[in-house]
Amino acid sequence: MRTDHQSLQAFVVRCLQRVDVSESDAVTVAHVLVSADLRGVDSHGVARLRRYVDGVRKGKIDPHTEAAVLAETSTTAVLDGRNGLGQPASCAAIDIAIEKALETGLAMVTVRRSNHFGIAGYYALRATRRGLFSMVGTNASPQVAPTNGASPMFGTNPIAVGFPTDPRRPFLLDAATSIVPRGKLERLHREGRVMLPGWAVDPYGRSTTDIPAVVNGLKAREGHALLPLGGLGETYGGHKGYGLATVVELFCGPLAGALWGRHVYGRTGAGLGHFFLCGRVDFLRPLEEFQAEASQMFDELRSSPKARGCDRIMVAGEREYEVEQDRLENGIPLRPAVIDDLMRLATENGVSGPAWQEGSTPSRTQAGGYPLAVQDEWS
Amino acid sequence: MRTDHQSLQAFVVRCLQRVDVSESDAVTVAHVLVSADLRGVDSHGVARLRRYVDGVRKGKIDPHTEAAVLAETSTTAVLDGRNGLGQPASCAAIDIAIEKALETGLAMVTVRRSNHFGIAGYYALRATRRGLFSMVGTNASPQVAPTNGASPMFGTNPIAVGFPTDPRRPFLLDAATSIVPRGKLERLHREGRVMLPGWAVDPYGRSTTDIPAVVNGLKAREGHALLPLGGLGETYGGHKGYGLATVVELFCGPLAGALWGRHVYGRTGAGLGHFFLCGRVDFLRPLEEFQAEASQMFDELRSSPKARGCDRIMVAGEREYEVEQDRLENGIPLRPAVIDDLMRLATENGVSGPAWQEGSTPSRTQAGGYPLAVQDEWS
Repeated sequence: MRTDHQSLQAFVVRCLQRVDVSESDAVTVAHVLVSADLRGVDSHGVARLRRYVDGVRKGKIDPHTEAAVLAETSTTAVLDGRNGLGQPASCAAIDIAIEKALETGLAMVTVRRSNHFGIAGYYALRATRRGLFSMVGTNASPQVAPTNGASPMFGTNPIAVGFPTDPRRPFLLDAATSIVPRGKLERLHREGRVMLPGWAVDPYGRSTTDIPAVVNGLKAREGHALLPLGGLGETYGGHKGYGLATVVELFCGPLAGALWGRHVYGRTGAGLGHFFLCGRVDFLRPLEEFQAEASQMFDELRSSPKARGCDRIMVAGEREYEVEQDRLENGIPLRPAVIDDLMRLATENGVSGPAWQEGSTPSRTQAGGYPLAVQDEWS
Repeated sequence: MRTDHQSLQAFVVRCLQRVDVSESDAVTVAHVLVSADLRGVDSHGVARLRRYVDGVRKGKIDPHTEAAVLAETSTTAVLDGRNGLGQPASCAAIDIAIEKALETGLAMVTVRRSNHFGIAGYYALRATRRGLFSMVGTNASPQVAPTNGASPMFGTNPIAVGFPTDPRRPFLLDAATSIVPRGKLERLHREGRVMLPGWAVDPYGRSTTDIPAVVNGLKAREGHALLPLGGLGETYGGHKGYGLATVVELFCGPLAGALWGRHVYGRTGAGLGHFFLCGRVDFLRPLEEFQAEASQMFDELRSSPKARGCDRIMVAGEREYEVEQDRLENGIPLRPAVIDDLMRLATENGVSGPAWQEGSTPSRTQAGGYPLAVQDEWS
């Protein structure tokens, strides 16, 4: 079944208001979550709503607070998320970064004491719409082992980089610094499929393909771990992925003044950190020239020789843009388990569910025949 | 045989002065090149000197020019390298970025019409010594295929990120966005060893392990290509490495106003672009607090459980720091082929060579027993 994005957003707002989140914060969260569903990053969309609602209900997330600016200069600001929802704090942060960057050329804003903020790309896109390039990152619950290690020490630490290459379809890289997220393993298991060697390690640091052991080990924090981009050891550049994950952790933890590494999601709350960097393209190059050359570069990439068996070369953000166009028009397909969970949430909170339309559940293949094989690997 | 770094630097200066490079520019190039040899990034050290000397001699690089500031604001500057040596232009750029960042909190400087600048990490470290975090990148001759592609469209596009975590031993990630550089394939071939599947593709985009075919294909730009970090296709995140390479290319090409993609090293010269971003840690977090927490994070990483068969977990920049300490004390070991080439350069240019000491040639194992398996993969 499918639902349209407005109906889904309105449902998210209703649920969050029932646990005492203000209307404006609820709208913000709804917008960020549903933008993930629209873009095909299903793992970071409304499938996460229960965690937010339950998190507030259990007192883990403060629904009443507002992010506070602890310090600022003309190019920087330090925000305290005060353990509120991650999305309102992060929208405040990127908007401050945008205004400062428009004024001075460059800006960086950090957030500490925050919670899950959704997809990093949402915030990067908010800046590209204003003609800025942007870089956004967050730390996350520990799941990824360092090179030569056997225990989860970092989150999947996504990083998003956006450029205002095309106002309608900006360049957006939004990628976890691990090879795959835990959610992908859970999905493969649900579908009766296998995981590949080199994605995760057992408590001895050896590659494993035992999905239940990995997923349960990660949940229990008992010594299974995902591997960083580049994989096991250094043969395929695993130390580079580990290095990138460390960069994100340094920005989001020690620099932002947030928790980091194994300490996030501890007794004092999630304590996550994020960073938001923006810069003016037009201080370095006239925007039209930049856009014309980026467009030519992308055209050359797309029309360059294809590997045998491949009929298309894409640019980061292109697939998600196409999925979004399709889902804006035809509605958002959700998995039966997600629909069931949303309807349970509706009942539990005494609100009406989204309006459902008949339609196929999400398939791994888009209408155009292009496989969405990694739609939930991007962040 | 070994030589000490001062003798090697003086030799580089002598050679460059013979092709009419000013003493101060020659000293700058010598410093950057030898810093690569000191840090164990042998592929980017004096082994490259011939290309610079011959490049100037053949009129491909202008020895007399000086980088010009085309535009600047309080946070940005745009430099034209005017086809001079990459190192003086890049030192000028990072120094402008450092001064602006110290003043305003954040700064970004781009360079266009430049040449090979050595290791990106050299410039990042220059900023960390001033208490700044930094990000530096460059584009390069086309060698890397996009995901689903079969032709080289980007360079190995290294990115370096530095943090002033410890004044003596700062955090430094300095990594090509490809899995391996071409130089690694050449070295393996020289040593009679094999390359692994998944590092490079043939003209049909299929993984190949035929080193001569790959190396010759890359040199002739005839359809062999290296693969981005994450490898072939999307299974292990190749699209993420491709995305990172694109990010570096966008900063260095369209944003910097330099050549990009297949157009670099064309008829008008290398036309490379670089970018240099710096920021003040202490505008976001007191430096001492940042350093204390980063240090604790690194200690936790190092002491976390090891994978079976591994006795050490490191942090980016640690291995290079240790190699540097060893080579500062015991001299820099060079391969016989590099020594021969340097001595030929000495003869050709009518200058005396470096002073050689007896000593082992570079091995893959450091005194401490830690394998230097990837010392030249980092950039």
